[in-house]
Amino acid sequence: MTTAETAAGVLPEFADVPAAELRVAVLGVGLMGADHVARLHSRISGARVVAVSDAFREKAEQVAAAVPGCRVVDDPLAAIADPGVDAVLIATPGQFHEEQVLACIERGIPVLCEKPLTMTAESSLALVRAEDSHAARTGRRLVQVGFMRRFDPEYAQLRELIAGGEIGEPLVVHCAHRNASVPPHFTSEMMVTDSVVHEVDVARFLLDEEIAAVTVLRPKATRHAQPGRSDPLLVLFEMASGRIVDVECFVGTGVAYEVRTEVVAEDGSAMIGLDAGLVRQTRSATGAARSTAIAPDFRQRFGRAYDIELQRWVDAARRGTIDGPGVWDGYAASAVCTAGVEALRSGQRTEVRLAQR
Amino acid sequence: MTTAETAAGVLPEFADVPAAELRVAVLGVGLMGADHVARLHSRISGARVVAVSDAFREKAEQVAAAVPGCRVVDDPLAAIADPGVDAVLIATPGQFHEEQVLACIERGIPVLCEKPLTMTAESSLALVRAEDSHAARTGRRLVQVGFMRRFDPEYAQLRELIAGGEIGEPLVVHCAHRNASVPPHFTSEMMVTDSVVHEVDVARFLLDEEIAAVTVLRPKATRHAQPGRSDPLLVLFEMASGRIVDVECFVGTGVAYEVRTEVVAEDGSAMIGLDAGLVRQTRSATGAARSTAIAPDFRQRFGRAYDIELQRWVDAARRGTIDGPGVWDGYAASAVCTAGVEALRSGQRTEVRLAQR
Amino acid sequence: MTTAETAAGVLPEFADVPAAELRVAVLGVGLMGADHVARLHSRISGARVVAVSDAFREKAEQVAAAVPGCRVVDDPLAAIADPGVDAVLIATPGQFHEEQVLACIERGIPVLCEKPLTMTAESSLALVRAEDSHAARTGRRLVQVGFMRRFDPEYAQLRELIAGGEIGEPLVVHCAHRNASVPPHFTSEMMVTDSVVHEVDVARFLLDEEIAAVTVLRPKATRHAQPGRSDPLLVLFEMASGRIVDVECFVGTGVAYEVRTEVVAEDGSAMIGLDAGLVRQTRSATGAARSTAIAPDFRQRFGRAYDIELQRWVDAARRGTIDGPGVWDGYAASAVCTAGVEALRSGQRTEVRLAQR
Amino acid sequence: MTTAETAAGVLPEFADVPAAELRVAVLGVGLMGADHVARLHSRISGARVVAVSDAFREKAEQVAAAVPGCRVVDDPLAAIADPGVDAVLIATPGQFHEEQVLACIERGIPVLCEKPLTMTAESSLALVRAEDSHAARTGRRLVQVGFMRRFDPEYAQLRELIAGGEIGEPLVVHCAHRNASVPPHFTSEMMVTDSVVHEVDVARFLLDEEIAAVTVLRPKATRHAQPGRSDPLLVLFEMASGRIVDVECFVGTGVAYEVRTEVVAEDGSAMIGLDAGLVRQTRSATGAARSTAIAPDFRQRFGRAYDIELQRWVDAARRGTIDGPGVWDGYAASAVCTAGVEALRSGQRTEVRLAQR
Repeated sequence: MTTAETAAGVLPEFADVPAAELRVAVLGVGLMGADHVARLHSRISGARVVAVSDAFREKAEQVAAAVPGCRVVDDPLAAIADPGVDAVLIATPGQFHEEQVLACIERGIPVLCEKPLTMTAESSLALVRAEDSHAARTGRRLVQVGFMRRFDPEYAQLRELIAGGEIGEPLVVHCAHRNASVPPHFTSEMMVTDSVVHEVDVARFLLDEEIAAVTVLRPKATRHAQPGRSDPLLVLFEMASGRIVDVECFVGTGVAYEVRTEVVAEDGSAMIGLDAGLVRQTRSATGAARSTAIAPDFRQRFGRAYDIELQRWVDAARRGTIDGPGVWDGYAASAVCTAGVEALRSGQRTEVRLAQR
Repeated sequence: MTTAETAAGVLPEFADVPAAELRVAVLGVGLMGADHVARLHSRISGARVVAVSDAFREKAEQVAAAVPGCRVVDDPLAAIADPGVDAVLIATPGQFHEEQVLACIERGIPVLCEKPLTMTAESSLALVRAEDSHAARTGRRLVQVGFMRRFDPEYAQLRELIAGGEIGEPLVVHCAHRNASVPPHFTSEMMVTDSVVHEVDVARFLLDEEIAAVTVLRPKATRHAQPGRSDPLLVLFEMASGRIVDVECFVGTGVAYEVRTEVVAEDGSAMIGLDAGLVRQTRSATGAARSTAIAPDFRQRFGRAYDIELQRWVDAARRGTIDGPGVWDGYAASAVCTAGVEALRSGQRTEVRLAQR
Repeated sequence: MTTAETAAGVLPEFADVPAAELRVAVLGVGLMGADHVARLHSRISGARVVAVSDAFREKAEQVAAAVPGCRVVDDPLAAIADPGVDAVLIATPGQFHEEQVLACIERGIPVLCEKPLTMTAESSLALVRAEDSHAARTGRRLVQVGFMRRFDPEYAQLRELIAGGEIGEPLVVHCAHRNASVPPHFTSEMMVTDSVVHEVDVARFLLDEEIAAVTVLRPKATRHAQPGRSDPLLVLFEMASGRIVDVECFVGTGVAYEVRTEVVAEDGSAMIGLDAGLVRQTRSATGAARSTAIAPDFRQRFGRAYDIELQRWVDAARRGTIDGPGVWDGYAASAVCTAGVEALRSGQRTEVRLAQR
Repeated sequence: MTTAETAAGVLPEFADVPAAELRVAVLGVGLMGADHVARLHSRISGARVVAVSDAFREKAEQVAAAVPGCRVVDDPLAAIADPGVDAVLIATPGQFHEEQVLACIERGIPVLCEKPLTMTAESSLALVRAEDSHAARTGRRLVQVGFMRRFDPEYAQLRELIAGGEIGEPLVVHCAHRNASVPPHFTSEMMVTDSVVHEVDVARFLLDEEIAAVTVLRPKATRHAQPGRSDPLLVLFEMASGRIVDVECFVGTGVAYEVRTEVVAEDGSAMIGLDAGLVRQTRSATGAARSTAIAPDFRQRFGRAYDIELQRWVDAARRGTIDGPGVWDGYAASAVCTAGVEALRSGQRTEVRLAQR
């Protein structure tokens, strides 16, 4: 857990969870789905992947083979209907989402659906209505959409900063969304529906209101763009309250993956995405300053290190061994500290005496 | 997984792990031990805390109550001996470590022991010898010591940078280790044994050699120091090869927790701890530059967000619901993208039409 | 001279200049004009302010009194016509610029005119034609306009970076121009003509082409804006080649003065204005990186310090004394270095012996 | 004038200086001396180089030729004695400084002497005594030593921060002083007397007290070091009050020129030299933060640009022309602003109409 995560409270120390593990079916195990299976299997607490499904059965078999107790199911709807499945993660192509999500709602089990929710606003609205009526009966929401930026510690912190009122009312938001490259078939329209869609959600998440209008400008295109692709694009959102969000979407920079967001507000501004955490620009008693927070204590600074240490130790211990600094490292540290205490007392350079290894 | 983590490879996507969950006993559930229980319970995959033990039984009971299936054991050695325990995490006071670690070695099960390994170099050496003879027989190491900085993505990256040879042979290392405050009883000697001990391990980890001599200087003390505490200290390590490591240890800065390390090497230098990732200073064809890496793709940039997204979704799904952007968010995004594609085609400002919620 | 200045070559070490000092008349000594007089008098080599003029004679007298040999002239045109004046700096209100600049062209002397050149594009064009015909006869340009950002080391460096081709063809430019506050009478139109006018010149300077069209958007206004002022504005320039420049102009941030420009180009991007020098984002053999240049040697790093040292020494020496580290500082440094050399040889802590002061 | 310069007040807007120009003799026109001549000639207000002297007469002639009115003098003492010389800048080799400075004191004229003041502490002390007795009679100090870091805006700001008490009492200072390379004859002793001497002055300047003792450690040397040179060195200063200053001096990094100083104090810390201005780490009402100041207004942000603009305009105007944005740039800006105001009013994209050039 980094400082940001603590600040934003994105991961509770103790989740109030029942004893039973969650049995998950993952539908679609292409790049994204396979990645989710790996996470659920090797990093996430309290869940087990019990079924995978894919149009390419071999792919599904390959993924399942790496996960003890995971079986391959040919029909995604059968996986959803399986009473041994508690929740479903959908990473199939978008055209299958509507039917699959609907099946989950009907069975009343939680589903995490990768974006896009469906291929049209109309069909998405149908899912809204379906889940609404389920929620009206049960009081529980079932459908989560895979806008993962909301869980990024920097975005969570930025939203928290806005909510806290420290920088006042947001007025303008500047976004940049850059990829080093995309596949040749990636069109300008996909830049809107697959790339800018993240900023659509970011704008709504940070500003807590809907987008009222969109304009798309086409600057001079990079020579690296495929014929017919306008790259970069400059997209403007007008929010319901009149705020404006501009988004530079550039999918062929040749450099790296860069996602940056700056919120300009009435009493200050803040930006993320420069690999420096949340940078705020505000005025205080000692003048106008650009600042970043420093971790208050070691649990914030090294929280992530503790997570990794434990996960790797657990992984190794399941194989009967360890994976980290060993007993000699403990002994050497002890010997150095002994010499250090002597050096502190005497004020003299003190040699460290180590036994033969 | 952040960029640093990917680069340093600290967490594998797919750990090659057996199906059986690791049953862990945690000995000592003070601040540190309770934190470990919480992590193992709510964030770490493949492990279950089945027993806790503490000199204060009430504390143990309180912790166990939050973890389904976890029982309280009065005698730590009984917990170690329990055949239902596969591995042990020791967070008891240092004076108990020797006996407890030895018991784990004797039973042949993996143990993660918080620092210090034991209270003297001699007793630590005894554990080295005991584990050596076990390893000689079985080929497996059992004792891991809790130097968690090795798992911090920045330190892992720094070590990898050195190992890759890009900055050449390290010559000098500068460290700062600062706490906002420590309890009143924290002495100058504890600054060496409890604080600087981390830099002892960092120096050995980064430079892959032993510390040959130590000197401790006492600069003018802060007025905030308790009587009798020399704060800050300036500690110098001479490594076996002649490299020098200097450590400013300052436990009462009143500011924050700051841990910084700079490695100065023959062909460049690199530092961590400024909340800007790994900053390298090197020379290239275009001149001398200070630089930081940018994530190559979204999996690196948002890997941590995916972890958090899935963990929170799993936690919620076990309660039958979700915890993240919902179906309306999916619908709104869809409606905006539809307008966006129209705006792209027409070159005109396009209004977004949302249904009534 | 900072690194940036060296890199961009903005100030030559040795200007090839004639012996005679330039005799300058400064017209208008309000805030800006008085500042120029002070600079010319106390920091600029080779010029002397010989005449000042202002609608408020008292203001002119006050300024002239601080500059030996400077007289007050009531009629600005008389100052321009004065054979004892070699060049003119115009800082009068904009409505007087046309007549005054024209008089300078007619007399054939160089003029530096603060922006705006004149109040309308038509009258500015008239000056273009007048200077063109002078230049056609003499081969010399006479009229410089006060767009001082071109001389800012960061902007100069950014232009040089673009010209060098390292980041390829620029496609989009993002600008922010923020003031903590402006006077109550500052209107939205003045935000365009007085503030954004700088980005107009920056865009033309960096991209070396004309602006073909302008759009101005009005986001939700800050509550701090005067009634009737749309603050902030979002201004879009379409350049002749199709590049797009967006400018956030926000004159009532309440924070500070912030001017930022990012150029997004085909093979990388670069930004200035974050008080970190020129930050470039590019790809090299070792991966994608965000980087800043480091000064190659002390003349770059401390060039500005040398300038200030000499200017302050000269100012003091004209009063018969010094203004900086004195002979005792030289002695103390000598004594410490003597001890240092002894310490180097002996490997021992060596005391410094200073005489009584 | 950068923000730092304003904050630290290193250059007054209006120096209270007499009308007469300072006539300066520069003794020694090697790299450093020639650089000083160029500055005095082309950038510094109120001074004229009237005489230069050098052991290599050709070098002196070459330099003098570029400065109208400057003559070559063979005997440095004759230049000092010349009634047409008001002040002297000494950049001769160190062994000549004693005699030359003494001659200046005897004539009662200000002198700026490059470091070292003299070759031994004893002879430096003799100059102290000589200047003391002159000052006792006249009330004026005459001898300034070339420790130019005191005039670096960052160092001036750091001293001001300490003096202001914001970070409390300094306790430890960390310095790094790195050169990409030095000539082959540069010895370890010269690393102390020529390089670390700057940190000697920095320590005394920032902490306002003397250095009581010095220790020099020799870490493992870089393979790039000449035989016999210990590079890097780690130098420790104990200040009179017990504060400790550590200095890494590394003259063959192969990278760049890096000078960094961090002051660790009772209530915060601050560092310079990372090309990010003065970075402070302090605690405020909103938590612990790392921060840098932002310029309050355009005069701070672009002060340096104004200086350069005016100096280049003056240099050009002395040749009868200009050197900067011209009348067409003024016209184009005017035409764009006219379109911009129309766009603001109409809310529409507005084309810019430019005349033929």
